[in-house]
Amino acid sequence: MSRFWSDIVNDLTPYVPGEQPALTHPVKLNTNENPYPPSPRVLDAIRRELGEDGASLRKYPDPTARALCETVAKHHGLRVEQVFAGNGSDEVLAHAFAALLKRREPIRFPDITYSFYPVYAKLYGVAHETVPLNADFAVDVDDYRSPNGGILLPNPNAPTGRALPLSEIEVLLKQNPDVPVIVDEAYVDFGAESAVSVVGEYPNLLVVQTTSKARSLAGMRVGFAFGDAALIEGLTRVKDSFNSYPLDRLAQVAAVASYEDRAWFEESCAKVVASRDKLTAQLEKLGFEVVPSAANFVFAKHPAHDAAPLAAALRKQEIFVRHFRLPRIDQHLRISIGTPDECDALIRALADIAR
Amino acid sequence: MSRFWSDIVNDLTPYVPGEQPALTHPVKLNTNENPYPPSPRVLDAIRRELGEDGASLRKYPDPTARALCETVAKHHGLRVEQVFAGNGSDEVLAHAFAALLKRREPIRFPDITYSFYPVYAKLYGVAHETVPLNADFAVDVDDYRSPNGGILLPNPNAPTGRALPLSEIEVLLKQNPDVPVIVDEAYVDFGAESAVSVVGEYPNLLVVQTTSKARSLAGMRVGFAFGDAALIEGLTRVKDSFNSYPLDRLAQVAAVASYEDRAWFEESCAKVVASRDKLTAQLEKLGFEVVPSAANFVFAKHPAHDAAPLAAALRKQEIFVRHFRLPRIDQHLRISIGTPDECDALIRALADIAR
Repeated sequence: MSRFWSDIVNDLTPYVPGEQPALTHPVKLNTNENPYPPSPRVLDAIRRELGEDGASLRKYPDPTARALCETVAKHHGLRVEQVFAGNGSDEVLAHAFAALLKRREPIRFPDITYSFYPVYAKLYGVAHETVPLNADFAVDVDDYRSPNGGILLPNPNAPTGRALPLSEIEVLLKQNPDVPVIVDEAYVDFGAESAVSVVGEYPNLLVVQTTSKARSLAGMRVGFAFGDAALIEGLTRVKDSFNSYPLDRLAQVAAVASYEDRAWFEESCAKVVASRDKLTAQLEKLGFEVVPSAANFVFAKHPAHDAAPLAAALRKQEIFVRHFRLPRIDQHLRISIGTPDECDALIRALADIAR
Repeated sequence: MSRFWSDIVNDLTPYVPGEQPALTHPVKLNTNENPYPPSPRVLDAIRRELGEDGASLRKYPDPTARALCETVAKHHGLRVEQVFAGNGSDEVLAHAFAALLKRREPIRFPDITYSFYPVYAKLYGVAHETVPLNADFAVDVDDYRSPNGGILLPNPNAPTGRALPLSEIEVLLKQNPDVPVIVDEAYVDFGAESAVSVVGEYPNLLVVQTTSKARSLAGMRVGFAFGDAALIEGLTRVKDSFNSYPLDRLAQVAAVASYEDRAWFEESCAKVVASRDKLTAQLEKLGFEVVPSAANFVFAKHPAHDAAPLAAALRKQEIFVRHFRLPRIDQHLRISIGTPDECDALIRALADIAR
């Protein structure tokens, strides 16, 4: 508390990101990072931008990230006016709260979801209602039918990993034609259907994506929104009233290069999906109940072992998973998919602990 | 306009940054960039972070930018709790509006100043009053004596370049002990006195700085705030409710390396100052009236030539300066200090046009 704080600050309950342990070789399965490096083209592009003496760094980056937006537009078959780039999808979501979700009626999102959503709502004074997921952690789109100010839904959902088919997302869009419907697709590339393909059909649809997961660029902070040009213009107006240059020069060229290497991206996703399926089977063999996942993590609980001591026991072996002390999910662990070796280390440790 | 926009969006008048011309070799004196490259240590640090295969980019950066804040704290003789790092000083200022300047009484800033301030005020619904500069563009601290919600002042001011001595800043701090006083020192290293040295003495003082100008890192987007630990905590709470990871991995190591090379920094500033003094004398010889500058730009007008056609004529020769169509300053040009060659090219062109 400080007498110099605005009223907003006193009200905030900031988001707490997953731990970044200061260890040499932790088995780090707690922040949904990709276990594989980014495309070698990313490295080439950064080196090219740096040149001999890094002289380009003295100049501001393109405030509109035009080349990046064009590349990504082309990748998704969109027009550049349908693409917004930000400093990670967290910044994109923050701007979406200010630009689109601050409305008279409360917005809706699931009770179990990305725990940053209620934090944004507090920061921007956005009223919201949470909608309980079903017992099996599935979203029932009928629960979003009555009047609301907007809908925010991750697909696949986090931390559950469960995906909704595109047909269900379209039901949601048709049921709520007068409010913004934001689909947060941070994990979509690991097995869910993207709503990017229907951006042109629904003027109320905004799809948010990131390079942090499937493109192995969490360290570079680049995220996107895709939607009708009017929605994108709303985000741009907020961005240009906040920070003209959110993406630095190296982040812009890195992200462009990543989109230019489709083969690397697809192979990297396929490896993660294969590891996820193997890990799921192994966890089930150890007695875990695993929520069907379309993401690069699994959400699992063991009927005979409390989640908190399990996480603590893993931590002692320098294996980090994420445990949320939140209603309905405090018996679950969210486990990011690591390399095959990391997954094996986890399974060995869990077998040991469970014994 | 869109029916999906929040009321905020309709009200905004976004900031317009200086043009980034798509030419091979423009004489670019319009966005106050440093004409010299960053320290070679910056390049080394980025290359080290990239390593052989860029594998570190797959992992999130340190959300607290701890190593960077420690380095900068040491540089300024502060404790790490007195340092906040953001995605450029524009983002730092935005968070300061939300965390500290959103108060009941209107805040104050000069009528002629960084034109982003009224934009932030609109975005965050912060009431403000502008205080006219004197006829010679000087700030009179007595004008900030009556009750207000907070004060925001660039030192040196932009786009005038005029600096206020630290003793005057301290008068301001003593006159307004119950509200935040924010000193925006984007250009301080080119000849003004920094208020960082008195951060420990005034719990209401926040000093904002950037690596974009004196440290030649405009392309990397790193800015800071320095102040009492309680003010910094207010900013951190807002930041952690907006985007956990505003600074990417390469930006963090680049900024650390820049602060580790004091000699490069001092030499680069000295060269810019020498060029500024020479350019000022040459402009005066051509009949320009030049405001005394402590920044890396000069603010000048010619009694016999309108500023807009002058800027247009320079543009035809691929020389870019900044002209603001704003009250009281629409006859001035803001000219960034370039290399000696760029300054010579400007003087030749102006001599030609003025003839």
